[in-house]
Amino acid sequence: MDYTKIHINPISPEPTNGSVLVIYTGGTLGMIYERKGKQLVPFDFQQIMERLPEISRLDFDITFLSLAEPIDSSNINLEIWVELVEIIEANYDQYDSFVILHGTDTMAYTASALSYLLENLNKPVILTGAQLPIGVPRSDARENVITALELATAKNEAGHPIITEVCIYFNSQLLRGNRSKKKESSDFNAFHSENYPPLANAGVSIDYNLPYVKPYEPGPKFVVHKTLNNHVAFLKMFPGITPVVVQSTLNIKGLKGVVLETYGSGNATTDIWFLNAISKAIDRGIVIFNVSQCDGGRVSQGQYQTSKFLEQVGVVSGSDITAEAAITKMMYVFGKETDAQKCIEMLANPLRGEMSI
Amino acid sequence: MDYTKIHINPISPEPTNGSVLVIYTGGTLGMIYERKGKQLVPFDFQQIMERLPEISRLDFDITFLSLAEPIDSSNINLEIWVELVEIIEANYDQYDSFVILHGTDTMAYTASALSYLLENLNKPVILTGAQLPIGVPRSDARENVITALELATAKNEAGHPIITEVCIYFNSQLLRGNRSKKKESSDFNAFHSENYPPLANAGVSIDYNLPYVKPYEPGPKFVVHKTLNNHVAFLKMFPGITPVVVQSTLNIKGLKGVVLETYGSGNATTDIWFLNAISKAIDRGIVIFNVSQCDGGRVSQGQYQTSKFLEQVGVVSGSDITAEAAITKMMYVFGKETDAQKCIEMLANPLRGEMSI
Amino acid sequence: MDYTKIHINPISPEPTNGSVLVIYTGGTLGMIYERKGKQLVPFDFQQIMERLPEISRLDFDITFLSLAEPIDSSNINLEIWVELVEIIEANYDQYDSFVILHGTDTMAYTASALSYLLENLNKPVILTGAQLPIGVPRSDARENVITALELATAKNEAGHPIITEVCIYFNSQLLRGNRSKKKESSDFNAFHSENYPPLANAGVSIDYNLPYVKPYEPGPKFVVHKTLNNHVAFLKMFPGITPVVVQSTLNIKGLKGVVLETYGSGNATTDIWFLNAISKAIDRGIVIFNVSQCDGGRVSQGQYQTSKFLEQVGVVSGSDITAEAAITKMMYVFGKETDAQKCIEMLANPLRGEMSI
Amino acid sequence: MDYTKIHINPISPEPTNGSVLVIYTGGTLGMIYERKGKQLVPFDFQQIMERLPEISRLDFDITFLSLAEPIDSSNINLEIWVELVEIIEANYDQYDSFVILHGTDTMAYTASALSYLLENLNKPVILTGAQLPIGVPRSDARENVITALELATAKNEAGHPIITEVCIYFNSQLLRGNRSKKKESSDFNAFHSENYPPLANAGVSIDYNLPYVKPYEPGPKFVVHKTLNNHVAFLKMFPGITPVVVQSTLNIKGLKGVVLETYGSGNATTDIWFLNAISKAIDRGIVIFNVSQCDGGRVSQGQYQTSKFLEQVGVVSGSDITAEAAITKMMYVFGKETDAQKCIEMLANPLRGEMSI
Repeated sequence: MDYTKIHINPISPEPTNGSVLVIYTGGTLGMIYERKGKQLVPFDFQQIMERLPEISRLDFDITFLSLAEPIDSSNINLEIWVELVEIIEANYDQYDSFVILHGTDTMAYTASALSYLLENLNKPVILTGAQLPIGVPRSDARENVITALELATAKNEAGHPIITEVCIYFNSQLLRGNRSKKKESSDFNAFHSENYPPLANAGVSIDYNLPYVKPYEPGPKFVVHKTLNNHVAFLKMFPGITPVVVQSTLNIKGLKGVVLETYGSGNATTDIWFLNAISKAIDRGIVIFNVSQCDGGRVSQGQYQTSKFLEQVGVVSGSDITAEAAITKMMYVFGKETDAQKCIEMLANPLRGEMSI
Repeated sequence: MDYTKIHINPISPEPTNGSVLVIYTGGTLGMIYERKGKQLVPFDFQQIMERLPEISRLDFDITFLSLAEPIDSSNINLEIWVELVEIIEANYDQYDSFVILHGTDTMAYTASALSYLLENLNKPVILTGAQLPIGVPRSDARENVITALELATAKNEAGHPIITEVCIYFNSQLLRGNRSKKKESSDFNAFHSENYPPLANAGVSIDYNLPYVKPYEPGPKFVVHKTLNNHVAFLKMFPGITPVVVQSTLNIKGLKGVVLETYGSGNATTDIWFLNAISKAIDRGIVIFNVSQCDGGRVSQGQYQTSKFLEQVGVVSGSDITAEAAITKMMYVFGKETDAQKCIEMLANPLRGEMSI
Repeated sequence: MDYTKIHINPISPEPTNGSVLVIYTGGTLGMIYERKGKQLVPFDFQQIMERLPEISRLDFDITFLSLAEPIDSSNINLEIWVELVEIIEANYDQYDSFVILHGTDTMAYTASALSYLLENLNKPVILTGAQLPIGVPRSDARENVITALELATAKNEAGHPIITEVCIYFNSQLLRGNRSKKKESSDFNAFHSENYPPLANAGVSIDYNLPYVKPYEPGPKFVVHKTLNNHVAFLKMFPGITPVVVQSTLNIKGLKGVVLETYGSGNATTDIWFLNAISKAIDRGIVIFNVSQCDGGRVSQGQYQTSKFLEQVGVVSGSDITAEAAITKMMYVFGKETDAQKCIEMLANPLRGEMSI
Repeated sequence: MDYTKIHINPISPEPTNGSVLVIYTGGTLGMIYERKGKQLVPFDFQQIMERLPEISRLDFDITFLSLAEPIDSSNINLEIWVELVEIIEANYDQYDSFVILHGTDTMAYTASALSYLLENLNKPVILTGAQLPIGVPRSDARENVITALELATAKNEAGHPIITEVCIYFNSQLLRGNRSKKKESSDFNAFHSENYPPLANAGVSIDYNLPYVKPYEPGPKFVVHKTLNNHVAFLKMFPGITPVVVQSTLNIKGLKGVVLETYGSGNATTDIWFLNAISKAIDRGIVIFNVSQCDGGRVSQGQYQTSKFLEQVGVVSGSDITAEAAITKMMYVFGKETDAQKCIEMLANPLRGEMSI
């Protein structure tokens, strides 16, 4: 597909801080309140730029590219993820860094998916967006976009990019993308990474938490993946859950895997009907990935009787992975591997820093 | 059912601070590491008391009652909830307050369910538990139990109980039960109420946040409900969700309602197949309750196109309710009402302070 | 003194949301990095406006007024405070609300001082500023100024201003001015009110914490005070403090009062030389105001032996007041009253919600 | 001095986790409410042990030693600090680790002082205490003491202690001692380290933040220092501060140094009288150490005009040091060095991880 790129003239003819490709996907950031209505509709591209006059004062080379049809992030799907991967692939050598403007609703899902699809990434890919449209005077859009651009172009003393992973920047914090979760639907402080510290904090200066940042590694070759398999589902435990509810999910036609949202450190009911249902699903080749309903802490199968049975029947522990990183990891793993045992091994181990071991 | 009650002799013959019934249901608090194993098994009742020598120094009348078979909270079910209601009903006039020792995993579900089942409650019902078994030296059990007892017996200047609702006390904070969520599976600071402030903070003194505490109201008669209907399920949105996944849930036999876990302020995909599926389910009398995947903020159907359609087809907005309070509210409402329209009205409005309007 | 006012044409000829007088005092917000230097120098007024294009899209009537000589907030002094009071007095009937642009360094001191000097205030006076100059692309200035303007013009359903006190707005939070403290010199989240909850939180919408907001009271007449007495000093306790250090402060010529910065809940050494020194100073008519070095909690003289002596010799408890609100309260009280006993009474009781009783 | 040591029989004859010397200095932890009074008085040693039955179940060798006269931490002084150093010196080879029970009020001062006095420390020295006396049923004392003991005896896989610095453990967090501050006088969560992350978090398990923990270094020889010079004072800036206040401090007889508590990132008034006063004091050999009134962020002299002058006249930047670590560092430095220039160099650079460079 051909995309129109718009090049922003940098402040100096030879910008010292390299080049950024900004990819616009849609979302609240680019919306405006319809005249005489209360409903939000998308801005066009030129209108967004008008609200960001600061961009022309940044000392790096910026190019904008918009998806053919910008979409609200609630409509993000696998095709868009692959489209984003293809855009980054096609532009990987030409640009030093990538900023993706994305709706907040599914940003954590997209950041997680991209982290798997972009293997051996060695340049910054930073997603950002806004809680209020850029057309609203007190919007958070401007600060988020400008700082994401600064983070994307930050270099260490050796001249290498400081960030070489897929991240979310939002409200002063840079988070590892596949560790992030949209926690607040109203606050500007919308994203959170409960089990991994922020990679950077933006205030008067930008302070990096270097021990937790993935280091620049020039060696391994950048590889992109474009296949995802979405024969997956969530199954969330709750007291009183009935066999028919559990079966309805485990019996979905074509199902490859289930993210089982358990209690606490990975616990579920020990009712015999439940364990049998899980056990039989596993026998049929369905992979069960144990992820906690708690934001913080980790699944530790075997600590309690209520998780020991899950371990015994072959449920895969998700450790401290988020639900967002888990469901997209399943899509990636099933898109790449067909052997169930290999899938289980990939799920059980960190691929892109998305979980602790 | 007959329960054995154990009465703890108070420090003084006529304790000034009234009486508490402590109900033990099981959970981590009462567990111990099996000798030579790493797995946790339940303590017996007497052993728990030995670890709480402070209890004999409190100046109120304490009676202990244990469920016939204490269970891990992952196995809590509707029968236990009704059993708890019946215990409170049978002892309501005899005791000034109630403390329930409960596993942390499903404590927020139980607290929510009890809040609906106990109508016009006018005495404290405080759930607490622990992240580490009381047999582990650095356990949080003792502090949680002792402070829960103090909160349960606290009176205002008029001699009325300060707290007259179902609460969770944990790690220095008293939270409204149906506003709580287990957020951390490892930290002692396990519970959180993102959309409603804590009712009290325990430090050197106990400070109440009175404007947010439900006031004592002697008028309306205490009513208990004992019917719950669990023909309910969660359906969690994610990018790439397929029609077959959505249908598997909506077509569950006998289903009365679904908690739809949406993005942000209540958004979901606007794909036509999805809206049709939801719309047809509603036509079949299934109630869809819109609850956000975000902990904070609220569902605001109609703000974006992606939630406007949900509003139009008759999805019920859950405002800022938690998933735990939503699924249990559905069980309560469907247990009480059969008329779909009446159910929708009950769901859409706060019954026990569980959501904002 | 005559000030030049600049009137910003509102978006509509008859703005629906009333009028704001914006008073510019100087500070980081209005600074710019000197060309070829790293040092910050002040912007002129017109330059600030150019960076705030959103202002012309707000639907209220805005007038700007700049101090004759804008100053860095480290140089704020009593004359400026009185000048601000006189500007507000002269414009009180003409404008619905006041926004003061102020450096962050002493903003909490100024907000505290103004709260005392403006008695029976019944209109919003909101201070704001920025951690990064408005000329820096990722500055927090714009968001702070725009939201402060929205807060200043917010009305309740009865058409009255929601806020009728001196506040600080910063980084999404509206705080009571005399409860605020600059806590962070680098983060955008610079201000904090440890002992009183925020009055409002700005996100997608602005949510007010109404039980804690001073209500609109049309009755009492607005009174301004213009006299401050700065014969005051801080004396901060530390282990190893020597008699000569304590005496050097207590013997300051003309001294009226000392803010004694104690440990914890108001404790100090019980060394006899120390108690004697304090006691003799009190006998000489010096007022000692006990404020904790801790941000949170309150002075509770008499709880420990180490504070009981202070109570006995006549030290005045500052309860949960901040150091900033304490030192300025002393200046106000000594400017108004000469009788030591009356001063002590005013200090010991809340005048503008600056402390709890 | 001879101290009585009490040896607690460990649970097993050959405890696997080494030995701890617990040093009791006094403080809230060991207090009890006087019968019929509300005032707190000290417990004796035996009474404390009775409230800690868990200690006998820990698998390490514990020895208790009490100062001859336990004191409230508000009365801690230089002699006590030297006494603590001498106790540690005399027992350094005999014990694997040290736990100091200390009042909370000055714990951050003591921890800072000890960090300087114990050079090349290679064993854990952990201070802890309580907000509520151990005699109060819902006291935080037990949890703090037990966990401090576990932290003190924790080993890494190589069998070396994980912690080899002076720390404060309080309410689930292990903090570097000279980075800590008592922030809350009422909450159990009393201590905070704003500019350095916690070294460990205690929940279901104890999680260490290893990149920020000082590593075990067997090489350099342990050296103790016993000289402190307290010819030091605080001078806290506030708007309206008068020349006579500034001079009263700078002219203290025998003064060696002043911790100047400035605004924000190290700013003070640029009034000529002030700069002259500071400048002349420096000429007289007085060292001025610039520390911010803000808890977070750091002094950055020269960023603003209001700090540039301080830099020019020779004020020493305290970077992100706490007031507690600054005043005690001065005492240590002046106790060790008489040459002003050498003192300045020591102050300007981190000696024990107390400040960032």
